[in-house]
Amino acid sequence: MKYVYRFEEGNKEMQNILGGKGANLSEMTKIGLPIPKGFIVTTEACLNYYENQGKIKSNIVEEIINHINYLEISTGKTFGKGKNPLLVSVRSGAPVSMPGMMDSILNLGITDEVAQTLIKNTSNPKFVYDSYRRFIMMYANVVKGYPRNLFEKKLEEYKNAKNVTRDIDLEAEDLKQLVEDYKKIYQNVGGKEFPNDPTRQLLEAISAIFRSWNNERAIYYRKMNSISDHLGTAVNIQEMVYGNLGENSGTGVAFTREPTTGEKKIYGEYLMNAQGEDVVSGVRTPSHMDELKKQMPDIYKEFCNYATLLEKHYRDMQDMEFTIENGKLYILQTRNGKRTGMAAIKIAVDFVKEGMITKEEAIMRIDPKQLEQLLHPRFDENVLKTLNPIGKGLAASPGAAVGSICINPKEIKKRKEREEKTILVRMETSPEDIEGMNYAEGILTARGGMTSHAAVVARGMGVCCVSGCEDLVIDEEKGEINFQNGITLKFGDIISIDGETGFIYKGTIPKKEITENVLLQEFLSWLDEIDTIKVRANADNERDAIQAKKMGATGIGLCRTEHMFFSKERIFSFRKMILSTTMPERVKALNDILPYQRIDFYRLFKVMAPNPVVIRYLDPPLHEFLPKAEEEIEELAKALHITKEEIKERIHRLKEFNPMMGHRGCRLMITYPEIAIMQTKAIMEAVILLKQEKLNITPEIMIPLTVDQKEFEFVKKIVDDTAYKIMRDHSVSINYEVGTMIETPRACIMANKIATSATFFSFGTNDLTQLTYGFSRDDSSKFLNDYYKNKIFIEDPFASIDINGVGDLMKIAIDHSKKVNPKISLGICGEHGGNVKSIPFCYEIGLDYVSCSPYRIPIAKLAAAQAKINKKEKVKK
Amino acid sequence: MKYVYRFEEGNKEMQNILGGKGANLSEMTKIGLPIPKGFIVTTEACLNYYENQGKIKSNIVEEIINHINYLEISTGKTFGKGKNPLLVSVRSGAPVSMPGMMDSILNLGITDEVAQTLIKNTSNPKFVYDSYRRFIMMYANVVKGYPRNLFEKKLEEYKNAKNVTRDIDLEAEDLKQLVEDYKKIYQNVGGKEFPNDPTRQLLEAISAIFRSWNNERAIYYRKMNSISDHLGTAVNIQEMVYGNLGENSGTGVAFTREPTTGEKKIYGEYLMNAQGEDVVSGVRTPSHMDELKKQMPDIYKEFCNYATLLEKHYRDMQDMEFTIENGKLYILQTRNGKRTGMAAIKIAVDFVKEGMITKEEAIMRIDPKQLEQLLHPRFDENVLKTLNPIGKGLAASPGAAVGSICINPKEIKKRKEREEKTILVRMETSPEDIEGMNYAEGILTARGGMTSHAAVVARGMGVCCVSGCEDLVIDEEKGEINFQNGITLKFGDIISIDGETGFIYKGTIPKKEITENVLLQEFLSWLDEIDTIKVRANADNERDAIQAKKMGATGIGLCRTEHMFFSKERIFSFRKMILSTTMPERVKALNDILPYQRIDFYRLFKVMAPNPVVIRYLDPPLHEFLPKAEEEIEELAKALHITKEEIKERIHRLKEFNPMMGHRGCRLMITYPEIAIMQTKAIMEAVILLKQEKLNITPEIMIPLTVDQKEFEFVKKIVDDTAYKIMRDHSVSINYEVGTMIETPRACIMANKIATSATFFSFGTNDLTQLTYGFSRDDSSKFLNDYYKNKIFIEDPFASIDINGVGDLMKIAIDHSKKVNPKISLGICGEHGGNVKSIPFCYEIGLDYVSCSPYRIPIAKLAAAQAKINKKEKVKK
Repeated sequence: MKYVYRFEEGNKEMQNILGGKGANLSEMTKIGLPIPKGFIVTTEACLNYYENQGKIKSNIVEEIINHINYLEISTGKTFGKGKNPLLVSVRSGAPVSMPGMMDSILNLGITDEVAQTLIKNTSNPKFVYDSYRRFIMMYANVVKGYPRNLFEKKLEEYKNAKNVTRDIDLEAEDLKQLVEDYKKIYQNVGGKEFPNDPTRQLLEAISAIFRSWNNERAIYYRKMNSISDHLGTAVNIQEMVYGNLGENSGTGVAFTREPTTGEKKIYGEYLMNAQGEDVVSGVRTPSHMDELKKQMPDIYKEFCNYATLLEKHYRDMQDMEFTIENGKLYILQTRNGKRTGMAAIKIAVDFVKEGMITKEEAIMRIDPKQLEQLLHPRFDENVLKTLNPIGKGLAASPGAAVGSICINPKEIKKRKEREEKTILVRMETSPEDIEGMNYAEGILTARGGMTSHAAVVARGMGVCCVSGCEDLVIDEEKGEINFQNGITLKFGDIISIDGETGFIYKGTIPKKEITENVLLQEFLSWLDEIDTIKVRANADNERDAIQAKKMGATGIGLCRTEHMFFSKERIFSFRKMILSTTMPERVKALNDILPYQRIDFYRLFKVMAPNPVVIRYLDPPLHEFLPKAEEEIEELAKALHITKEEIKERIHRLKEFNPMMGHRGCRLMITYPEIAIMQTKAIMEAVILLKQEKLNITPEIMIPLTVDQKEFEFVKKIVDDTAYKIMRDHSVSINYEVGTMIETPRACIMANKIATSATFFSFGTNDLTQLTYGFSRDDSSKFLNDYYKNKIFIEDPFASIDINGVGDLMKIAIDHSKKVNPKISLGICGEHGGNVKSIPFCYEIGLDYVSCSPYRIPIAKLAAAQAKINKKEKVKK
Repeated sequence: MKYVYRFEEGNKEMQNILGGKGANLSEMTKIGLPIPKGFIVTTEACLNYYENQGKIKSNIVEEIINHINYLEISTGKTFGKGKNPLLVSVRSGAPVSMPGMMDSILNLGITDEVAQTLIKNTSNPKFVYDSYRRFIMMYANVVKGYPRNLFEKKLEEYKNAKNVTRDIDLEAEDLKQLVEDYKKIYQNVGGKEFPNDPTRQLLEAISAIFRSWNNERAIYYRKMNSISDHLGTAVNIQEMVYGNLGENSGTGVAFTREPTTGEKKIYGEYLMNAQGEDVVSGVRTPSHMDELKKQMPDIYKEFCNYATLLEKHYRDMQDMEFTIENGKLYILQTRNGKRTGMAAIKIAVDFVKEGMITKEEAIMRIDPKQLEQLLHPRFDENVLKTLNPIGKGLAASPGAAVGSICINPKEIKKRKEREEKTILVRMETSPEDIEGMNYAEGILTARGGMTSHAAVVARGMGVCCVSGCEDLVIDEEKGEINFQNGITLKFGDIISIDGETGFIYKGTIPKKEITENVLLQEFLSWLDEIDTIKVRANADNERDAIQAKKMGATGIGLCRTEHMFFSKERIFSFRKMILSTTMPERVKALNDILPYQRIDFYRLFKVMAPNPVVIRYLDPPLHEFLPKAEEEIEELAKALHITKEEIKERIHRLKEFNPMMGHRGCRLMITYPEIAIMQTKAIMEAVILLKQEKLNITPEIMIPLTVDQKEFEFVKKIVDDTAYKIMRDHSVSINYEVGTMIETPRACIMANKIATSATFFSFGTNDLTQLTYGFSRDDSSKFLNDYYKNKIFIEDPFASIDINGVGDLMKIAIDHSKKVNPKISLGICGEHGGNVKSIPFCYEIGLDYVSCSPYRIPIAKLAAAQAKINKKEKVKK
């Protein structure tokens, strides 16, 4: 077994054994870039180190020493001694990029004797002692774990004594003294002299890097990112080149494209007379690469050539490290560069136009999270940096909102009319707050998790929301809100809430608005070229439907009809319906609502025709619609000709212990078939209106919360009977489908029965997750924090589908239903429908579409396209 | 295909084609009993009738007529004519006993002409006209569907005119006139003359019986009893014998054993000079069979011989019909007789002793519901008949209770001490009412279904309970309870509640107490001889454990530790624990509770040792324990050194939207590991106390509401760490198991993971049913009524396991867990553990034990024994 490779022996495909950095150094060596000579100790050596109880086996030590010999021969230098001494850098490089591990040690091989030789050779004692003192500190810190600040303090002392601020302004003599002081510190801390044997130093450094693979931060990082613990890290040993050799030397990092905008230009920073760490340490201000163009035009041109070469070779934007030693350019590292969402889009689109990658590759390059950034306004990061948040909740719906605190949803519309921007602040929200939520800039709640009413509705509306800020208390009497940290704000005070982070700030923070972006539109249009799982929208009204269409929805996957009942003129009739004790009274009240529902459906259908629209029948428990205000109760009492006490009594009777598992969904229609009759009438009559305008649509009627075939068939019969009657009365024929949500575990298990009479299923994974876990989404945020803290859960099961648990139930439902009804249409309309982690799973298990809020459609489409491309690539392999 | 069978051709195994009655008539013919000659039109003819659009096919008509010819030959009579006319009875007989179908027509074949001949032959015109008028009424009513009361009114008129009360006191002339009147009525109603053709009458009668197979009542009965619609009914045509031929004739019904006590004696009633219907109509008071012994000793002796013969032949107590015609005894029917629970036990035990059946057969003869009757006191049926209930709820826990209305659970104990019997009347109950519930005679709630807190706890305690009486309103201010029907009772008024029926009565109703019964004990001891699924008890305290042991529990399958926190001295500390904001405060409060828990466990273990005891750790949401009364809040505030407002604020923060899916079960222990630590300490220290008395027990620690392997392991680690520490500190070794409830759908799906670290599973099918359906057991009773009404559900899914839905999840859990842990112990501790319909399923899927309330143990054992015997018999076949 071979444990050590020369750069000449590797290539970029060998990341697994050479690590990312080593593989790229090999690759660059192969294509002829000026890479300092070096070799790589493989990840397998690392694994062997652990198998061998934390010791490097003698055969591997031998291989390393043989390669040092090779390095001596190919550089014409001798390691840590002789007339032309060889110094090396030692750097870690795991197969996947992994912060938390130890990084690098430079100048290894330097000793007092070598220092003298180097001074002789370079006539640059300042450079030599500078290199020496850096090496001692890095070795002490990285290999031995001695505190870095002991050394830095000493350096500070020297600078203070000399009254200089920059390291390079110290003289050779100071640095020489510093080297001695560093050695003393080293001895004081560990009780041993600083080692003077380069080979021993090298082996210690390699062992330290192996050990850092299993330090706590690294393990935690791997766990969080599902990276195997059994990869190991490689170690790169490379001839030193010196950016600190004088004013003709330097070092820098640069991107092949601008990483925030994606513009095609070299973008980076460099420092003359410096080693790598100086560029990032901020002690000296680095120069922009444009400066280098003027300062060293040939070097700059050479660098640009390499940049172009590497971009073409790696087919991606590169993040390069380089060093100039006495006017000669060396490349020390290249890797795919990190970039903002905007830059990612521009680079991907440009690369396609430049013929470097295919559209499919471009699609695979964009992280859906980056796309999300682009679709919402954000606070100016530079301003954010200067501010302390006053509280923190869950980042429930992205965006950035500024407005005055308002706790009354009804007030918000009025203020909007006065062009006043408001943040709705509530303990929690309920369906009757919908209108206020719609007109608010943002929503802040004290209770409720990522799938609380506030969070779900806000995401649906594209309104920024921070939910579950447990520290927040609303004091209505005093007209103020209090945070547990003692901060108090009056109603009407301005706050800013950040839907990306969950932070809450006092006052106004300037926003960066993302305007319409041609490049983005072009990119999005490519997504439609991929034949993958379809994306529909959750939309409850004409406005949402228009937005959905604009975002490219292929239909509406969920129209929550209950949201249609909340405007003023309707809620009154609806409440009358709920509180009636006889069917004729209920029918009368429902008849008052019918015209509104009909016109709502008509408008919705008109926007979407001929695309399908799924209409979910009334779902929430009735008491969600009931009045709380005394005057509303009085008004209702009058209308129903009963006493206020009687109304209160009826309201009380409707209270439930666990409303989420109470009288809701199709259970309402079993008790009150007249509701289903009214809703069916409204739909059919809307279709007839459309037909008169020569527009066609096939409404998909969705029965919520089904648990049983007979239950479904009972409601379906109401729908069918009503529909047939209307068709007969109007002498028309209307195509429509009747299907159901699959949102109870029992519906999954009984899918083989239910599917015999349903033409479509739509997974309601919010409720399904609630019931599968027994986690109330309104209450679980409280205890889930303890689950994260104790690492029982890594993430909120409401955020992305729990593939093992909920996902298994979905698979059971799909298998069962396809057996009895192979043509059944399958979708998902829960929150997970817009979740990028869940969409590949939905594609994988064979759903026909996902449905999500209009604002998430582009993100969902991207995830869907990527799922398809991934699958194709897997099949290829 | 043969559609008609002579009695001589059939036997008792041919029920499917001959029906029950026909098969038995054939069997009795075969063994030589005096059975009037006859034949059977098969169930296949019935099915053929339906296939043939409601007509009897000509070949079948031909077969029937051929058999009439056979009957004519074998009786020496001619059908509906001639010198010796043959009259027949036509009676239905389905393969399974089925009320709701039409029963019988007697005297068919009589015409004006035949009547004259019969008068001549018998010189008994009264008998002839009596037979004739009966026939016309039965034919008109049964075949044509004309209202029976038209005829009865006419009969009354005659009796009034003659000033007699009994039918037989009418003279021949009256009856002759009545026949004419009946014919007129027949013509008036249908517009057609009464038919005068016996063959046509016979075929019409057979068709009518075929039709009655599909009348509404029959269809409904079959649906409710899961009887196939495709069985059809047979029709029995039999030579008439006459009990109404004079004072030497008669008719009666008798059981071979006393059907209420099971005593070995002929028990029945008869009437001289009467036809069958007279015995049951109540117009004349029948005589007891003892009279017959005196009146016709030979006949009686002959009957007794037949009774013994039939009992031996059928190996069961028989219910026989007979007729005496001119001093000759005929047997008209035999079947297994219905009996009370007590009689069933006595008969079964006697039969075993008489060597007629095996113990296993005896076990199979007892319906678990009958056994249930025996284990609870009941109201005197005779008194009940005379009373009107004032309200009705769900029959939540069997028994019968009388007491004064009391709404305050705390008050009840005091009254008990004064020897006052109370009924606890509440909107609903909560764990803090436990003590009151324990001391109440019975419990009545306005809300909550069969598995509401009140129902579950009451069944556990063996206390009678009527729950979910929706009509009930408690008016605390006025000190009264109101029913929607306007009835109002004051607190303190006496009511009686019936846990068998759910009825509520005003005042005191006398009870029949069931005293200790040797026979019953003997029968129950046989159950232990059957090697089947084990039965454990749900028991939370010493008292329950003693009861459980008495009832024959093999261990405790569920000890709900939360019930240990409610007594006065504990609840205060527990509340302090809940409302503390720091861990040290919580630990301190828990330490106060520890000694109580330890002694509780010690006592429980001591009763059960060495049998296993499953201890479920704290399960309910914390707010269930919180105070509501102002003074309690104040007391707590003082103890915690905070303001009342702060306490209220903390209580408010603990409120949940859906507590059933909230912060409860093992979720509490994730947040507050100190609870699990305290409970583990209490258990281990109790075991150590026992060890000092040389008693051994293996506590089985059960973690509630698990959803995930890591979650389970987190809590298990707390238990293990605590247990090891105690073992170390005391230098002892303690065996204990750590397992979990399987009560969330996710736990079922993830069972293959969870079972790798759990040593036992116990299905909590209450919660599992709630979550699988999304039915809150506290709220679902409201809408489930509509499900029954619309025949969507046949029964409450909380009453017996939903085999298709919940049962499937259980099977998944079992399959998954056995794969990774074949030795895992499996039980069930939900309410279904004591449900007779669910126990065979539990046995079938391979559970090791069921656990139920102590009072249900005998019933559960019986169901378990029957499940095993059934399985054995299936295997034999």
